[in-house]
Amino acid sequence: MTVRIAVIGAGLMGADHAKIVAEDLPGAALQVVCDMDGARARKVADTHGAADAASDAEAVVARADVDAVIVASPDFTHAPLSLACIRAGKRVLCEKPLSQSPAECRQVMEAEEAAGARFVQLGFMRRYDQAYVEMREALAGGKLGRALMMHNFHRNVATPAADFTGAMAITNSAPHEFDVVRHVLGTEYATISAWQPKRSDAVVAPVVMVLETVAGQVVTVEINNNAAYGYDVRAELVGEQASIAMNQVAYTRIDRDLRQATGYDADWRSRYAEAYRRQNRAFLHFIETGAYPALAASSWDGYCAAVVAEAGVRALNEGRRVPVEMIARPELYA
Amino acid sequence: MTVRIAVIGAGLMGADHAKIVAEDLPGAALQVVCDMDGARARKVADTHGAADAASDAEAVVARADVDAVIVASPDFTHAPLSLACIRAGKRVLCEKPLSQSPAECRQVMEAEEAAGARFVQLGFMRRYDQAYVEMREALAGGKLGRALMMHNFHRNVATPAADFTGAMAITNSAPHEFDVVRHVLGTEYATISAWQPKRSDAVVAPVVMVLETVAGQVVTVEINNNAAYGYDVRAELVGEQASIAMNQVAYTRIDRDLRQATGYDADWRSRYAEAYRRQNRAFLHFIETGAYPALAASSWDGYCAAVVAEAGVRALNEGRRVPVEMIARPELYA
Amino acid sequence: MTVRIAVIGAGLMGADHAKIVAEDLPGAALQVVCDMDGARARKVADTHGAADAASDAEAVVARADVDAVIVASPDFTHAPLSLACIRAGKRVLCEKPLSQSPAECRQVMEAEEAAGARFVQLGFMRRYDQAYVEMREALAGGKLGRALMMHNFHRNVATPAADFTGAMAITNSAPHEFDVVRHVLGTEYATISAWQPKRSDAVVAPVVMVLETVAGQVVTVEINNNAAYGYDVRAELVGEQASIAMNQVAYTRIDRDLRQATGYDADWRSRYAEAYRRQNRAFLHFIETGAYPALAASSWDGYCAAVVAEAGVRALNEGRRVPVEMIARPELYA
Amino acid sequence: MTVRIAVIGAGLMGADHAKIVAEDLPGAALQVVCDMDGARARKVADTHGAADAASDAEAVVARADVDAVIVASPDFTHAPLSLACIRAGKRVLCEKPLSQSPAECRQVMEAEEAAGARFVQLGFMRRYDQAYVEMREALAGGKLGRALMMHNFHRNVATPAADFTGAMAITNSAPHEFDVVRHVLGTEYATISAWQPKRSDAVVAPVVMVLETVAGQVVTVEINNNAAYGYDVRAELVGEQASIAMNQVAYTRIDRDLRQATGYDADWRSRYAEAYRRQNRAFLHFIETGAYPALAASSWDGYCAAVVAEAGVRALNEGRRVPVEMIARPELYA
Repeated sequence: MTVRIAVIGAGLMGADHAKIVAEDLPGAALQVVCDMDGARARKVADTHGAADAASDAEAVVARADVDAVIVASPDFTHAPLSLACIRAGKRVLCEKPLSQSPAECRQVMEAEEAAGARFVQLGFMRRYDQAYVEMREALAGGKLGRALMMHNFHRNVATPAADFTGAMAITNSAPHEFDVVRHVLGTEYATISAWQPKRSDAVVAPVVMVLETVAGQVVTVEINNNAAYGYDVRAELVGEQASIAMNQVAYTRIDRDLRQATGYDADWRSRYAEAYRRQNRAFLHFIETGAYPALAASSWDGYCAAVVAEAGVRALNEGRRVPVEMIARPELYA
Repeated sequence: MTVRIAVIGAGLMGADHAKIVAEDLPGAALQVVCDMDGARARKVADTHGAADAASDAEAVVARADVDAVIVASPDFTHAPLSLACIRAGKRVLCEKPLSQSPAECRQVMEAEEAAGARFVQLGFMRRYDQAYVEMREALAGGKLGRALMMHNFHRNVATPAADFTGAMAITNSAPHEFDVVRHVLGTEYATISAWQPKRSDAVVAPVVMVLETVAGQVVTVEINNNAAYGYDVRAELVGEQASIAMNQVAYTRIDRDLRQATGYDADWRSRYAEAYRRQNRAFLHFIETGAYPALAASSWDGYCAAVVAEAGVRALNEGRRVPVEMIARPELYA
Repeated sequence: MTVRIAVIGAGLMGADHAKIVAEDLPGAALQVVCDMDGARARKVADTHGAADAASDAEAVVARADVDAVIVASPDFTHAPLSLACIRAGKRVLCEKPLSQSPAECRQVMEAEEAAGARFVQLGFMRRYDQAYVEMREALAGGKLGRALMMHNFHRNVATPAADFTGAMAITNSAPHEFDVVRHVLGTEYATISAWQPKRSDAVVAPVVMVLETVAGQVVTVEINNNAAYGYDVRAELVGEQASIAMNQVAYTRIDRDLRQATGYDADWRSRYAEAYRRQNRAFLHFIETGAYPALAASSWDGYCAAVVAEAGVRALNEGRRVPVEMIARPELYA
Repeated sequence: MTVRIAVIGAGLMGADHAKIVAEDLPGAALQVVCDMDGARARKVADTHGAADAASDAEAVVARADVDAVIVASPDFTHAPLSLACIRAGKRVLCEKPLSQSPAECRQVMEAEEAAGARFVQLGFMRRYDQAYVEMREALAGGKLGRALMMHNFHRNVATPAADFTGAMAITNSAPHEFDVVRHVLGTEYATISAWQPKRSDAVVAPVVMVLETVAGQVVTVEINNNAAYGYDVRAELVGEQASIAMNQVAYTRIDRDLRQATGYDADWRSRYAEAYRRQNRAFLHFIETGAYPALAASSWDGYCAAVVAEAGVRALNEGRRVPVEMIARPELYA
């Protein structure tokens, strides 16, 4: 039985998802590509051999020939479309963030609780990245001793938009770090603090954050959206007995001009290509079996990321340590 | 139109191919798994959802519901089954070697020439490995200047069988190096020399080879089938202006017990998993379009590997520089 | 004219200094080794061929056959002995800290100001370490753009004493980081914050600090005195255009047991052996020429380290961002 | 008792030796700098505070105020000056090669045998390089199992002179490799073979050599005097159980322009600065104690290097495997 998937959003991320469904998910068919810009939807649909193109997202969710949905449309549509999927009884792989509003995230959780099941898989694809998988396994395997600290660095060549702000570094970029660290450490945050160095030019400066976890760990996060030199994500998990760190993966190195050099990617796409593939295969398996994927991020995880980001913005603005205050974890997400 | 593929041979390699067809080749179906041991065929067929299992390879090649064939049965069957595929007008992805006998390789080439087309794609999957792809691109892009030397190291934890010999290191393991170096450098070999250090134990010692190419390059190859420490393949291409070398790819490193360490694989399978996937996708594209894949190794490449290996064995036995004597490259393989 | 040097303190550090004077400072003679424990002084004196041994430090400072002094006795003696040297008009290389009390550091500065010259070179030897030298040069050379952040990690296998505390991590270990970061960045600190994760055992947990500089940079410092895995110091300086990071220096790597590994030192001594040598040669040059060494840390730098450490302890105890409040830099240290 | 050392030769190497004697050998004095070009001798003498300058090397060797000699004059003077030192009963640190003529090396050995003692320490300073020290220790410590192979790569940015030849790569550059490999493996060579790839330009092409040892190991050596990209020496020692390889030592790395890069030196001087220092200190200790240094290369080692190089040139010219034929090791060098 082929699973018919609709991809909503035909921008960069949507096109990537359409490609994965078309080329990397045997057992799935790319049924519809939908975008408010119908021409854009049509183009991506044709490129990847989708059966159909459309421009009304809510209608696509409701279609009888759509078994499941991938949401890659603009951020503000994520929660409403996820809610529509839940109402339609269809599983949805929703790009992050679920919402920047904790309240809106709670609405999604409440809808799932009312339905008595999880429908939403959230696109925190880093959980499927081999490096984080190995870090989590090393911790679980006892090789490190108890986790004490985790240091995280996220660097982009440049912000996409000129009006990007430090607050957006916290709400748009940092949630990947917030989520994957929670996932690796298996705990929640207690407090967050934030700083921003001064740049000499007009682009947004990095943000440095320190978080404490409920379990007593200390986590540092640097979000540097204008790092200039390359796309670079690093992490180190420090345990009581040992430490595990992410390598820069490069297949070759070149000796030339008095230097030995390896290359950086210009953006995140090739770095996480395999993680997206694994994540989307887990989603297909979720659709086929109904069993929620072991590694996947849920609505609850989306809520947690939103709460932490909100506290982080306050910490940056007020120059102080801000508590991270969350509701109790609902039974459904235990 | 789904392409129906038969996998012949249900050992380690055959099972891997069956898995790739079943899970990583959208557009392809695993139609039959065939093995002289019918129970083994059935088991692999069931594991990967094949439509059928069989034990008569020649019959499978001839089946009307089989569009193309992957040959992963014992080495001596490779050429006969490739010939059967050519006769049946079906494309075949044949595991290396095509044959250890140059004469038998020539029979396959002659069959293709008679048929007026290439049917055989040979499983020198290293050509699809990202590191070699980057080496070839660096050379083509002029970053290195003209190629002068290539150094190659192939190390296994241990030989599978106790009766493995130095000659087998040359005929069974080294062809991967022979082929990928020819492929990267874009030239043929002129001479080969070989040495074997003495081990203190009963297992087969490494073989060190030096080859000269027609274009005047010098190539070194170490085949160390009992390296003990891990599965490790290295290569460096030295140009007149710069050098490019393969990195050991590891996603994480661990600091523990006064050491910083990264892991080696115990065998080749995870190292080349992506190369196999790419190779088999290229094969599917070949079946679908009829266009011979740009990177693929052909019968001609299988012949070249066999000739070099044969000369290498002579060089080792006679302790001297042996010329590599090949027929002219037939038009079909230009 | 041979320079006659007295080494005060014959413990681990004192013995190392005696060795350097005896073996690595052509033009200098090891005149006296002094220790409250006269037998210990005698032993080090004999080992390194000193002319004499003694147990009264103040008397040694005053001796006519002593041209200059290296102070490596217990911390509380550093400032008093430095003052004695100033009074005697003799240059002194004083191990860090000058004093943990900013007030006492000011007394030393005032004595130098009264004498109209700098006599004290403080043993922040990291400034002479090749990695920091390269970081400073890269910054000065404009390769990085303006400095934005500096990340620092200091890890020991284990604390020497069982009664080591988090406050001591800040006052005893962190000053090396405080000083070298100020030195590399060329600025002072404005605020400091501190955290401590919880360990499951009785040993002291790491301390994580975030400092802001007057120039608007953000600095992170991890002091992990029970890191277990090895002696490991790391630093990364992130600029607006590029980043420079310290490598783990190891001359060889070993492939064995499915791992590629390089070694960590068990303590700081071999890691900084060359920095000590360079520092002490700079001291000899200072004695010989009277010109204060370009890279050296002065009493002012000792004062700055003490002020920051004091603020860091308050930040840890009070769980808040604490301002770093220093006197204006005296003319003598401009 | 200060040891008075004469340095003969005031070129690049001689000036470096004069500097080491003046600055890094406490207990030694730079007594004379001698060069056929008296003005050059005077300049180096003045730079490093030598007591005297001279232009007649034989006379310098005979001077009563010279206790020992360092020979860094042109290659053809090495053996004659070493003989003069032996006659004068003075220890000599002679730069490599002792002589390119095995017969002349034998004359030096015979002079030492007649005198009943070793006087010559040969400047194969690589034996003091930390990486080779660690390789030798790993082998001796049993970590690797029995040695099977050693791979060696020597790369220069460019040959100093336009008339450099492949034969000179073997006679002038390769002896460092020949010697240090013998030293690490503790055995002699049995055969040598050599190849040279073709370059597209006028500069000398690399030479690739394969040597067999008497103990049954296989050694590869690449000498690439026009490698363009940097000064780079690599070595790997492969044992039956494990492998140890030399790291590229760099204190820092820079992330910039989509690359992570570490630097190469432009020449050998900083790479081996510490090895030269250790070697010369061993020479001083030899002078002071009369005990021949454990790691040092002797006249015998100079003879061995000359014999292997001579055979290597024949192997290159004749395109065949050439036996390395040496006299039996005299008792004095046991």
